[in-house]
Amino acid sequence: MQRIYLDNAATTPLDPIVLEAMMPYFTTHFGNPSSIYSFGRESRMAIEKSRKSIANFLHASPGEIFFTSCGTESSNTAISSAVRDLGCKHIITSAIEHHATLHTCTFLETQGLCTVSYVALLGNGEIDMQNLDQILQSSTDKCLVTLMHGNNEISNLTDIQQVGEMCKKHDAIFHTDAVQTMAHYPMDLSDLHIHFLSASGHKFHGPKGNGFLYINQDIQIKPFIHGGSQERMMRAGTENVAGIVGLAKAMELALTNVEQDHAYILSLKQSLLQQIQQQFPSCKINGNYQVDQSLYTQLNVACPNNERTDMLSINLDMAGICVSGGSACNSGAQGGSHVIKAVYPTANIIPIRFSFSKLNTSAEIDVVVEKIKGLL
Amino acid sequence: MQRIYLDNAATTPLDPIVLEAMMPYFTTHFGNPSSIYSFGRESRMAIEKSRKSIANFLHASPGEIFFTSCGTESSNTAISSAVRDLGCKHIITSAIEHHATLHTCTFLETQGLCTVSYVALLGNGEIDMQNLDQILQSSTDKCLVTLMHGNNEISNLTDIQQVGEMCKKHDAIFHTDAVQTMAHYPMDLSDLHIHFLSASGHKFHGPKGNGFLYINQDIQIKPFIHGGSQERMMRAGTENVAGIVGLAKAMELALTNVEQDHAYILSLKQSLLQQIQQQFPSCKINGNYQVDQSLYTQLNVACPNNERTDMLSINLDMAGICVSGGSACNSGAQGGSHVIKAVYPTANIIPIRFSFSKLNTSAEIDVVVEKIKGLL
Repeated sequence: MQRIYLDNAATTPLDPIVLEAMMPYFTTHFGNPSSIYSFGRESRMAIEKSRKSIANFLHASPGEIFFTSCGTESSNTAISSAVRDLGCKHIITSAIEHHATLHTCTFLETQGLCTVSYVALLGNGEIDMQNLDQILQSSTDKCLVTLMHGNNEISNLTDIQQVGEMCKKHDAIFHTDAVQTMAHYPMDLSDLHIHFLSASGHKFHGPKGNGFLYINQDIQIKPFIHGGSQERMMRAGTENVAGIVGLAKAMELALTNVEQDHAYILSLKQSLLQQIQQQFPSCKINGNYQVDQSLYTQLNVACPNNERTDMLSINLDMAGICVSGGSACNSGAQGGSHVIKAVYPTANIIPIRFSFSKLNTSAEIDVVVEKIKGLL
Repeated sequence: MQRIYLDNAATTPLDPIVLEAMMPYFTTHFGNPSSIYSFGRESRMAIEKSRKSIANFLHASPGEIFFTSCGTESSNTAISSAVRDLGCKHIITSAIEHHATLHTCTFLETQGLCTVSYVALLGNGEIDMQNLDQILQSSTDKCLVTLMHGNNEISNLTDIQQVGEMCKKHDAIFHTDAVQTMAHYPMDLSDLHIHFLSASGHKFHGPKGNGFLYINQDIQIKPFIHGGSQERMMRAGTENVAGIVGLAKAMELALTNVEQDHAYILSLKQSLLQQIQQQFPSCKINGNYQVDQSLYTQLNVACPNNERTDMLSINLDMAGICVSGGSACNSGAQGGSHVIKAVYPTANIIPIRFSFSKLNTSAEIDVVVEKIKGLL
């Protein structure tokens, strides 16, 4: 059976060129990068070259890039340290953030370390910027604003330039979860008022188990994971050298071809969108799907909840089509998507997230539409 | 130049059989293990099979094994949660633990969350069990005892059976850093009174960036890294599937041949020990090097500090011989080894740690001895 993989927001296939770049660090170049002999220095150099490459793409300094095990660890580090080390006693976030953000905020709140405010959302889950400004304005405590760049379920893009400027105005710390946008959009961090940014390699054809945290050089935090002197004493634990090399290579490949891939992937999304709108008028689109206000890599379709749609994703699976109802990270949890519930609290829908990569084809989109037609 | 790698306590080369087991998860089997479609379930099954294999070797339940990014993360999780979730307000550790333990303890202490006591050490860094019993006896707070199984610098083995029984007697929580002993010694966790055990894959020919934490099923903690539902809501972040498969494979290979490898590697250590004692009488051995009281994988030699030994590890590096002065994790830190300082505070020595694997040969040991002879 032909498999059609349309769940690239959950994870992407590792690019064979990335794997090739990683291989020496699984074979001959196995030295511990902290070892001082020449053999260890080979590994150290591979890490530092990777860091420099990532920093260059982001217009950041290499000293601002810290390798972690995943985007979730990056977000935990940023949010916890903002509260602990930077005096942020008030977190402002939204109800549609990834659980890496929300559960960290809730945890810190239950520990009595901070209060948490949730910014109001507009009709399709857009951040209400005016409300954000009001909350910042009226806060008596130093604030951390943590808002994601691109939503992993409903695809909305948030204007992080505007949020950054608002945070600057109110002397707030700004963390953004850029897991869905990193290496999918060019970013110039020298031009954005961002203090922390979380990213994960496996969302752009890099290896699982590798992420990074950008920490603006103007701020100083303590480590989240304590121990050895790795990552300039900011993240202890022997570095995943092959993974770091793979992460940097994947980012290089993605950003070198970003305009071309963007246009191509967007054409797939638009094709699916148009066909769904034409052929399934009872289906709506979740989130803001305006071209420049949403991820070009995702489309979240709201199917009316009935006996046919109820089994839709299982039936698609049986037809070899991989899509998801929401975030993969939450599939082990009880209940439906917290994002859909927050944006459409009264809607009786089955959400289906389609997410695309450069490896998908328009023929696949057509097959998927035909298959849905047969199922609905 | 022939390279002789004698720094296996820092990291070990990845076994090609392990890499082969990992490869499908870098290529065809890339699904997110949290995805509910069949393609994601392949990854989920690989993880659960790995967990079961590890649990079986340790006589533990699969539900007691939690995958992490490294041994350091495992230790951070155990120690922090014992203080936060299990009510341990008094940590008892030793001055010769890995920094993953010591820095976590110090951090918690500086946050005012606990007090830290350091158990007395005997002549060659052995844990003073009588003193441990006294501290436990006199503590008015619930205790966490965190003592490593095998020391990563001076090779001492601690009797974790005895420590566990002592902890049981005093109703204390026991965490052991088993990074240097995991898969090098058979372990029956059903017979040891251990609550937490930290392990890391790259110390036994597995991949870097992968570890696990054993959490005894009798205790309940909250996650250290918050977010998605991975690892039964205990460790958020998309799982490093290839790494987990590699970790389990490496453990299987190591423990299947453990008796044979133990005898062989010990013969290398004993050969180096004898030659050093015979040919370099001014050199002593750091730590307890009695066969059954020390790691068979390591030998730490105390060279008298003079102009020749000062450059010894650099000159060995130039000769293609990889050894270290102590823990690789600390090489970025200022000052010498905290372990050597704690055990031999007044000694004016240059410590050289030799650490062996099944891939070393007795011919390599002889070459190293000849090379040292030339240098000293």
